[in-house]
Amino acid sequence: MGAMFSLEHAQALDAADPLRHFRQRFMCDEPELIYLDGNSLGRLPLASIKLARDLVEQQWGARLIRSWNEGWFDLPIRIGGKLATLLGAHADEVAIADSTSVNLFKLAVAALRRQRGRTRILTDDLNFPSDLYVLQGAIEMLGGEHRLEIAPSADGVHGPVEALQARLDDDVALIVLSHTVFKSGYVYDMAALTAAAHAAGALVLWDLSHSVGSVPVALNASGADLAIGCTYKYVNGGPGAPAFLFVRRDLQAALHNPISGWMGQHDPFAFGLEYVAEPGMRHFLTGTPPVLSLALIEPGVDLLAEAGMAALRAKSVQQTEYFVALWEALLAPVGYTLKSPRQAAQRGSHISLGHVEGWRINQALIHDLKVLPDFRAPDNIRLGMAPLYTSFVDLYQAAIRLRRAVDEGIYARYSRQRTAVT
Amino acid sequence: MGAMFSLEHAQALDAADPLRHFRQRFMCDEPELIYLDGNSLGRLPLASIKLARDLVEQQWGARLIRSWNEGWFDLPIRIGGKLATLLGAHADEVAIADSTSVNLFKLAVAALRRQRGRTRILTDDLNFPSDLYVLQGAIEMLGGEHRLEIAPSADGVHGPVEALQARLDDDVALIVLSHTVFKSGYVYDMAALTAAAHAAGALVLWDLSHSVGSVPVALNASGADLAIGCTYKYVNGGPGAPAFLFVRRDLQAALHNPISGWMGQHDPFAFGLEYVAEPGMRHFLTGTPPVLSLALIEPGVDLLAEAGMAALRAKSVQQTEYFVALWEALLAPVGYTLKSPRQAAQRGSHISLGHVEGWRINQALIHDLKVLPDFRAPDNIRLGMAPLYTSFVDLYQAAIRLRRAVDEGIYARYSRQRTAVT
Repeated sequence: MGAMFSLEHAQALDAADPLRHFRQRFMCDEPELIYLDGNSLGRLPLASIKLARDLVEQQWGARLIRSWNEGWFDLPIRIGGKLATLLGAHADEVAIADSTSVNLFKLAVAALRRQRGRTRILTDDLNFPSDLYVLQGAIEMLGGEHRLEIAPSADGVHGPVEALQARLDDDVALIVLSHTVFKSGYVYDMAALTAAAHAAGALVLWDLSHSVGSVPVALNASGADLAIGCTYKYVNGGPGAPAFLFVRRDLQAALHNPISGWMGQHDPFAFGLEYVAEPGMRHFLTGTPPVLSLALIEPGVDLLAEAGMAALRAKSVQQTEYFVALWEALLAPVGYTLKSPRQAAQRGSHISLGHVEGWRINQALIHDLKVLPDFRAPDNIRLGMAPLYTSFVDLYQAAIRLRRAVDEGIYARYSRQRTAVT
Repeated sequence: MGAMFSLEHAQALDAADPLRHFRQRFMCDEPELIYLDGNSLGRLPLASIKLARDLVEQQWGARLIRSWNEGWFDLPIRIGGKLATLLGAHADEVAIADSTSVNLFKLAVAALRRQRGRTRILTDDLNFPSDLYVLQGAIEMLGGEHRLEIAPSADGVHGPVEALQARLDDDVALIVLSHTVFKSGYVYDMAALTAAAHAAGALVLWDLSHSVGSVPVALNASGADLAIGCTYKYVNGGPGAPAFLFVRRDLQAALHNPISGWMGQHDPFAFGLEYVAEPGMRHFLTGTPPVLSLALIEPGVDLLAEAGMAALRAKSVQQTEYFVALWEALLAPVGYTLKSPRQAAQRGSHISLGHVEGWRINQALIHDLKVLPDFRAPDNIRLGMAPLYTSFVDLYQAAIRLRRAVDEGIYARYSRQRTAVT
C-alpha cells in the first residue's frame, strides 16, 4: 500500500492538525483504546471532573437550597444561550430541558395545533426511530386526525429530498427530519428544504442531535422554525444530559407548550393556581431540571466554542475523507461497504460501514481489538469522528483493525445474539 | 419557660433518638447552620460523593459508551424497584423518569383517555400549583372537553375531603391530589379517598412528592391507581433528580404513555419504525435519562430503606409534635400562627407558620440567624423535619431564632422584594 496508508502519514496529519491540543482537555486514560463512538456518547472533558465535584460537594452539599438563587434557576436559559452560538441562533431562541423525545413532543404538538386544518406530517425512513415513535404517540393523543408519511430513501444513505418536496402541499402541517441522519450521516440542506416547506405553508422541525458540535448549523440564516437535539454526543455533555430546543423568535408567542409546568410559569413563586406562560423560551420549560446533568453540559459547549465550528468542520471533513480513502484501499476488498455519502458536503461527522458480519465484527472490535464504534441494525458499523479529540492515528489504526477482524476471522468467535444497548 | 423548652431537653431528645447516627451519613459542614429545608432539597448523602466521582470519572470518563450495558440502561427500572419498597408497591410498579410534571402529564393524559366519556377532573386548592398547570395544559391539548374543578380548602390547612367526595359522580374521570400538601403539610387518607373514587368509577392520581421518604405510603394496601413524585426532597436524590411514577399492575397494559419514545419501545435496538410498547413500567419511560442525576438517587433510597419507614415516621411525628409545642410556648405569643394540622395523623413532616412579616422574617433567618427554612407565598414559613438528619436541637434553636427575628426586629432590615426562587 502507498505512503498515504501508513502510520507515519497519519502521524503527520496529526502533527499538522490545528485542533490537536484539544484532545488533552479530555479524559483519555486507556491509551490503546480507539474511541469512535463520540457520536453516541462524547468523552469526558477534564473541566467537567472539577465542575462535577463542585456541583455535588459545594453547590449541593454545602450551599444546599441556596444554590437555586446562586445559578441553578438560570441554567436552562443561560446554557441554552451559549449553545445557540453553535447553532447560528439568537441566544434567546434556545433553552435546555428534558430529553430530546420530550422536547420533540412539545414542539411537534405545539406546531400541529398552530397548523390546525392541515393533517399531514412528513418525515423519512432515515429519521431516528424514537422521533417517529414520539410523532405516532402525539398523533394518537391528538385524536388520530393527522397522518405520518414516511418518505423512503432510495438507497438507505441519502435523504429523499425530491420525494419530500413532491409531497408538499397545503395539507402538510409539519416536516420532521434529522438534520444529520443517524445511520448514514447524510446531512440535509436545511435552507433549501425550509424554503420549500415555507412555500407550501408547512413548518419544519429539525432534530440536530447528530449535527450539533460537528456540522455547522445556521438556524437563523436558514429561516428555520423549530429544532431539538441532544447534548451528549459531540457536545460532550455527559450521559443522557438534558436536551435543547430552539423556537424562532417570532414563533415563540404563537406556540404553546402542551406540558405546561412551573418552570415555564410567569412569576412561579407567586404560586397562582392558573398557568400564565412566561414570554420567550422559558415557557417551553416544564418541571425542575436535573441540575447535575444539566450544569455539566457547559464545559462541553465551552470547548466547542473555543475551537470554533469552522475549524471543527474542516477537521471533520478531512477526517471523514481520510477514512473513506482508507476504506477504499483497505476495507472494501474484504467486504465492507460504504453506507455514508461520498460527497463530504452531504456528510456529517461519522462514517457507516456495512458488512454481512457487521454485528460480530463489532463485537470483535470491542472485545479483542480495542476499538469502540457502535452498531446500528441491521448491519451498520458506525465510526464517529469527534474533531475535538479523534486523531488521524485513531482512524488509521481503526482501519487496520477492521481489516484484521475479517482477515484473521476474529469476528467468528462471537454469537449473533445482541446485547441490550448497541 | 419550663424544662421542656430548654437546650438540655432538646439534647436529651437527641440522645434518645434511635436514628441519630444517620446524620453522620450526610454532609453537614456548616455546624452553625440549621437546615430545615430538606422538604425542598434534601442534604447530600456522603455515599453520593463517592458515587458521583465514580459515575463521572470511571463510568463516563473511563468506561464511556460501555457503561450503558454495565448498568445504565437498567437504572430507571432498578432504582424504581427499590423505591417501590418505600411506597408499599410492587417493585414492578415503579419507574424513574423525567420530571414530576412530565410524569403527571403522561399519567393524567393516559388516565383521561382511559376514562373516555367522563369529563371532570377533581383537585383542591392545596395542590402544588405546577400540578394544576400541567392539568390545564393537558385539558387544552385534548380539545378542551374536560373541566378541572378545584375544591377549596375551608381553612387553607386541611384538605376538603367532604367537598371532594360530594362532587364524585359518574362524570368524574380523575382525582389528582398531593398526598401531603406542600404548604400546610396536611396528609390525605389515601385508602378512604381511593375507595370513594372507585365507587364512582373514578381513578386517583397521587402526587407523593412531600410524602416519599417521610410519610408512610401504602399504595397497594390503599388500592391506589397512579402516583408520581420527586426524589430530591426527603429522598435526598440531589437537585432536580428525576422523578418517579407508579402504575398499578393491572392498569399498566390499559394505559398508554402519550410521550412514546425509545426507552419504552420493545426491542429498541431493532430500530423498527413503528412504536411497539414494551409491557410493564418500561413503556412509561420516554427518552434517554440524565444518567448522573438518575444514578445519584440510589444512595438516598438506600438510607431510607436502612432506617425503615416506621422508625422515620415515628421520629417525624415526635419532631413535628415537639415543634408545635415550641410554637405554642415561644412563637404564638409574637404573632406566628400555626398553618399545619394540629393532629399528627393528618400531618406530614413539615410545619408551616404564618406571620404578617413572613417574607422578611424568612430573609432574616437565612442571612442573620443561620436558619434555612423556605417561604411559600403569601406568608408561609415552612420548616421541614427530615428525620434522617434533623435533630431536636436544630428545632429548639430554630424556635429560639424565629422568636429573636421578631423580638429584636431583625426582619425589619429586609425589603419586601422577593428573589427568583423562594
